[in-house]
Amino acid sequence: MSVHSRRENINLADMIDITEAGRAMHVFATELYPICRSITGNGIRSTLGRIGEQIPLILHEVPSGTAVFDWTVPNEWNIRDAYVANANGERVIDIRRHNLHILSYSTPIHARMPLAELKQHLFTLPDQPDLIPYRTSYYQENWGFCLTHNQLMGLTDGEYEIVIDSTLAPGSLTYAECFLPGATEDEVLISCHACHPSLANDNLSGIVLATWLAQLLGQSERRYSYRFVFIPGTIGSITWLARNEAHVGRIKHGLVLTCLGDPGHTTYKRSRQSTAEIDRVVEHVLRHTGTAYAIKDFFPYGYDERQYCSPGFNLPVGCLMRTPHGRFAEYHTSADNLDLVRPEALADSLAKLIAIVQVLEQNRTYRNLNPMCEPQLGKRGLYGAIGGQIDAKSYQLALLWVLNYSDGEHALIDIAERSGMPFATIAHAATALQSAGLLTEDVQSIEWSAR
Amino acid sequence: MSVHSRRENINLADMIDITEAGRAMHVFATELYPICRSITGNGIRSTLGRIGEQIPLILHEVPSGTAVFDWTVPNEWNIRDAYVANANGERVIDIRRHNLHILSYSTPIHARMPLAELKQHLFTLPDQPDLIPYRTSYYQENWGFCLTHNQLMGLTDGEYEIVIDSTLAPGSLTYAECFLPGATEDEVLISCHACHPSLANDNLSGIVLATWLAQLLGQSERRYSYRFVFIPGTIGSITWLARNEAHVGRIKHGLVLTCLGDPGHTTYKRSRQSTAEIDRVVEHVLRHTGTAYAIKDFFPYGYDERQYCSPGFNLPVGCLMRTPHGRFAEYHTSADNLDLVRPEALADSLAKLIAIVQVLEQNRTYRNLNPMCEPQLGKRGLYGAIGGQIDAKSYQLALLWVLNYSDGEHALIDIAERSGMPFATIAHAATALQSAGLLTEDVQSIEWSAR
Amino acid sequence: MSVHSRRENINLADMIDITEAGRAMHVFATELYPICRSITGNGIRSTLGRIGEQIPLILHEVPSGTAVFDWTVPNEWNIRDAYVANANGERVIDIRRHNLHILSYSTPIHARMPLAELKQHLFTLPDQPDLIPYRTSYYQENWGFCLTHNQLMGLTDGEYEIVIDSTLAPGSLTYAECFLPGATEDEVLISCHACHPSLANDNLSGIVLATWLAQLLGQSERRYSYRFVFIPGTIGSITWLARNEAHVGRIKHGLVLTCLGDPGHTTYKRSRQSTAEIDRVVEHVLRHTGTAYAIKDFFPYGYDERQYCSPGFNLPVGCLMRTPHGRFAEYHTSADNLDLVRPEALADSLAKLIAIVQVLEQNRTYRNLNPMCEPQLGKRGLYGAIGGQIDAKSYQLALLWVLNYSDGEHALIDIAERSGMPFATIAHAATALQSAGLLTEDVQSIEWSAR
Repeated sequence: MSVHSRRENINLADMIDITEAGRAMHVFATELYPICRSITGNGIRSTLGRIGEQIPLILHEVPSGTAVFDWTVPNEWNIRDAYVANANGERVIDIRRHNLHILSYSTPIHARMPLAELKQHLFTLPDQPDLIPYRTSYYQENWGFCLTHNQLMGLTDGEYEIVIDSTLAPGSLTYAECFLPGATEDEVLISCHACHPSLANDNLSGIVLATWLAQLLGQSERRYSYRFVFIPGTIGSITWLARNEAHVGRIKHGLVLTCLGDPGHTTYKRSRQSTAEIDRVVEHVLRHTGTAYAIKDFFPYGYDERQYCSPGFNLPVGCLMRTPHGRFAEYHTSADNLDLVRPEALADSLAKLIAIVQVLEQNRTYRNLNPMCEPQLGKRGLYGAIGGQIDAKSYQLALLWVLNYSDGEHALIDIAERSGMPFATIAHAATALQSAGLLTEDVQSIEWSAR
Repeated sequence: MSVHSRRENINLADMIDITEAGRAMHVFATELYPICRSITGNGIRSTLGRIGEQIPLILHEVPSGTAVFDWTVPNEWNIRDAYVANANGERVIDIRRHNLHILSYSTPIHARMPLAELKQHLFTLPDQPDLIPYRTSYYQENWGFCLTHNQLMGLTDGEYEIVIDSTLAPGSLTYAECFLPGATEDEVLISCHACHPSLANDNLSGIVLATWLAQLLGQSERRYSYRFVFIPGTIGSITWLARNEAHVGRIKHGLVLTCLGDPGHTTYKRSRQSTAEIDRVVEHVLRHTGTAYAIKDFFPYGYDERQYCSPGFNLPVGCLMRTPHGRFAEYHTSADNLDLVRPEALADSLAKLIAIVQVLEQNRTYRNLNPMCEPQLGKRGLYGAIGGQIDAKSYQLALLWVLNYSDGEHALIDIAERSGMPFATIAHAATALQSAGLLTEDVQSIEWSAR
Repeated sequence: MSVHSRRENINLADMIDITEAGRAMHVFATELYPICRSITGNGIRSTLGRIGEQIPLILHEVPSGTAVFDWTVPNEWNIRDAYVANANGERVIDIRRHNLHILSYSTPIHARMPLAELKQHLFTLPDQPDLIPYRTSYYQENWGFCLTHNQLMGLTDGEYEIVIDSTLAPGSLTYAECFLPGATEDEVLISCHACHPSLANDNLSGIVLATWLAQLLGQSERRYSYRFVFIPGTIGSITWLARNEAHVGRIKHGLVLTCLGDPGHTTYKRSRQSTAEIDRVVEHVLRHTGTAYAIKDFFPYGYDERQYCSPGFNLPVGCLMRTPHGRFAEYHTSADNLDLVRPEALADSLAKLIAIVQVLEQNRTYRNLNPMCEPQLGKRGLYGAIGGQIDAKSYQLALLWVLNYSDGEHALIDIAERSGMPFATIAHAATALQSAGLLTEDVQSIEWSAR
């Protein structure tokens, strides 16, 4: 009870200067941007190391060759240098100028070849001739370079020297977890991929948001336990699920965070369950922000939600984004950079994420202890003038809504949705009614997925 | 069977001259208007007495202090005189000019005080400066006067004499019931509040409608038993529910009647169950009136439906109105008078109420006794020319609709809704098919609330 | 498995030249047009004989007087000649000029009477004065002639000779079945009425479509057994149901075919179950044709679906049409002729019918054998370049949709609907996944009607 009362008084949004946080997240993204990440290797390892300076993080190393469901943890890839030099020895393509120049997971090579032969290993975007594409070849051995189409057009015939100083050999896959225990063992999973090299929106925005949320939650009371996972995309979530299969039942709600720094409006992709509590909570929060947003039904491609929501797991994990992958022109190109990602967009995404967590923390199902007719609110001081920032008339209606629908079948989020009121007003009313002895928390949990 | 056949021939609307009824209801409202009603006392008592001259009514007196759920029946309030006189002894505020001048439940006082002190007990509407507001203080002892804002502005400084000749003392709360037994013990509850002083739409319109409906039903065959309750708002329905808790299971359908005399279109507020038979019936009737109407989902404030629909009761009771409370400018002011309430609006409300009751009376679930292929209607004289006012082609389609959907899972109202036809056509067809031995009433009642 | 694999490779649409089929169906309709059909007699008998030259057909003769549910098989009617001659012996109304001139089931007569008396037996369409109406009197003995209103206006007073050389006597009702056994005993029922005389859209279009579909299916592998019934309307389907009552459980899907040759867009009337597999399949196919179409909920009048969907049977049988009966001006008049029915409309209807059957044949429920995370498609050659006409990117998404939703609760049609993809793409993906050992057919059948 005392924990509960204390927690009710915590307003996460009050604990943080959102504008300042937006700026700080952008600074951290700027720090991480130059690291050449991939799904394994020192790039992701050092990235996780930097995150670990911000929040308590445990790194896990999973040996190459480990079977994880239908997949196998691949060899570890590390890259030291990569370039193409012309006859004059000038580096015409150079990883030191941009990490995207190297096809990720390129095998080592040192050779000379004419342009015609080299071209079979060069990737460009003819429709966006000034941008370098992002390409990978994780599961098929290959080597290559990515460059702008204009750069390719400028290459003269002749012989070139190719140097890729990489290693692709048994090692390990690295991922990290930040676990914040709460009052219950029920968990909220926050997942983001950390395997993309110099891409800011599609990678770094999710990482910095998760980091800042973890920092904030680390300082507050928590009803739920929170598990933040920083993983390489696809193989990382598959590996994590394979190693945690026995415990996924604890995950009550989850979000994949990605593409949260661009100037577009917020997009939420529902979990496969489609009406899980997380789905309803995010939709409620977005509806009450007063700004444009989009809701998408689950589809089985995208980010790691496709693994969390595979039919054998079917976890209540949605995906929070701004502009979805593939819908912004800069996606998977060198233009997905620190200019695309704005501090104010990061701040706005963080504010929404905090609001979502706030609702999850406070959403409960209560039972009206005086269900026969209305209780007399006046004699309990619940009717009439009340202080605070919440409008008095709304608050009194909220008391009636909570009393009428607290029949064990409606959680506070349901009552908020039905009344059209913001969750905070409904939760405030519930707290007051509980203090007045008119409401008790219903121990029966609601079967959300059955709705 | 014979009762049934007779009842089917009764068309309630044919038993009454609706235009004339509108005029008569307005006359009765005019009679009741000057009475100074409150939630207890001689005002409501004499109002119920007058109603009892129109329909068989049993008055109930519940002693002050009686516990009714979370509430206590309050002391009885009676008022004989109330005025504010100026230094010249002129009554500048005088209950004899308008009942609304007295704050309802004002405690007795005889005092002199300067205007400044008096003002703390004066209530006006600055935004509607020509109207007297309606104010009460049932559960907090106080005294006061209501007046127009212009009147307040005209009061000169100086000393005033205050006289409130009231009593607030143990007595009783009065309510009344008109019970009309029907062929079954299943009841239709019609509830209206009778506690407002000179307010015409918000009080008297419901009272006169209920009275006229009771008169009409008293003269006709009834499948259902009808229970009309005339009660003070809130405390009255709470008291009634407390005293009838054991029997509320008999209430199969119910309506709260209020604000039914203004020129606005009809509004129906659904029961908390939202798809109860009464909800579907009222919506069907309104849809087929050919005039504008509005349907509102249940919300836990308004009139006595908030008690009938409290979660512990959750009765199938909706609320029939024209313009909802708070949505017309005259609400709870001296402008809610006999000009706002029009005979033709009362007549229109009565016509709709009668149509609703007619559907409730006739709505049944039948079973097709020839469910394998269509029966041959021609050989039974059911196909071809038929007399009467109902269009022959519609009627023949209605026969097919009733036959096809009388599978024990669809009541006539469902078939009417599904076919898009008026209920009367469907009911007419069902009667003909039953007479032809093709249909039998299904004894299994439909679980409406489970839908 | 081998049957399955072979069947998957069959594309019914590839087996036929649709344009040519449209022309050929029109030729066959032209052949059948002059026959004077009724619900019994030599007209329908010889019509079925001609159909039997195209497809394997078994004729059934049901004796007059046979009880079929609430009905009795009527006497057999045959007509040899029918005319009205004027005083000069000129045939002013002559069945030899148009079959519609005779009121179907007219009793024999040879008499003379003045025009005034004759007029009581003449039927015209005053609003369409150039068209001959179609009228019948099956269950009430009568005689009569139908003619254009202009023709009637031109008849001079005087005596006329009436000759109807018909017989109405015990005989039999004739219907026919074409049964094509499939891999399972589960049946698809295709029903059309064959009792209308010279009416092309409302009768012949359904007959020729059913004939061509039967021809096509006769040449292909079949998962389902197909039963085509050619029957007189109403009494025919009632008779068929009465004689096959014990076996209707085999009917898993069904369509009534009618009015499929006019230039209007396709209309589908849902089965009474409304969400049966046939309903969902037809709607899916029509949605993906890219042309206008209409879906109507079931209503208990129309064609023989009213018998198949009577509540005692409630079979999953919808009705496929272009312009519904009564909605085109030519309906049941001499203008419903071979000009109204166009080869290209017949071809389009056949193409849609074939697409519907193709989906029924391929719609299955599968179970993902690797439901924990996604399987690695790349190592199985399922990811990357693929040949064929289906767009590679769509195909890869289809693989993911099928994997994610093959949880035993979604059939391929559900997955197609949910993904928004055409069924063929989804089915193609399912076949590939099954071949790769990632999918197995779910033996549990889905309860469609329970949805």
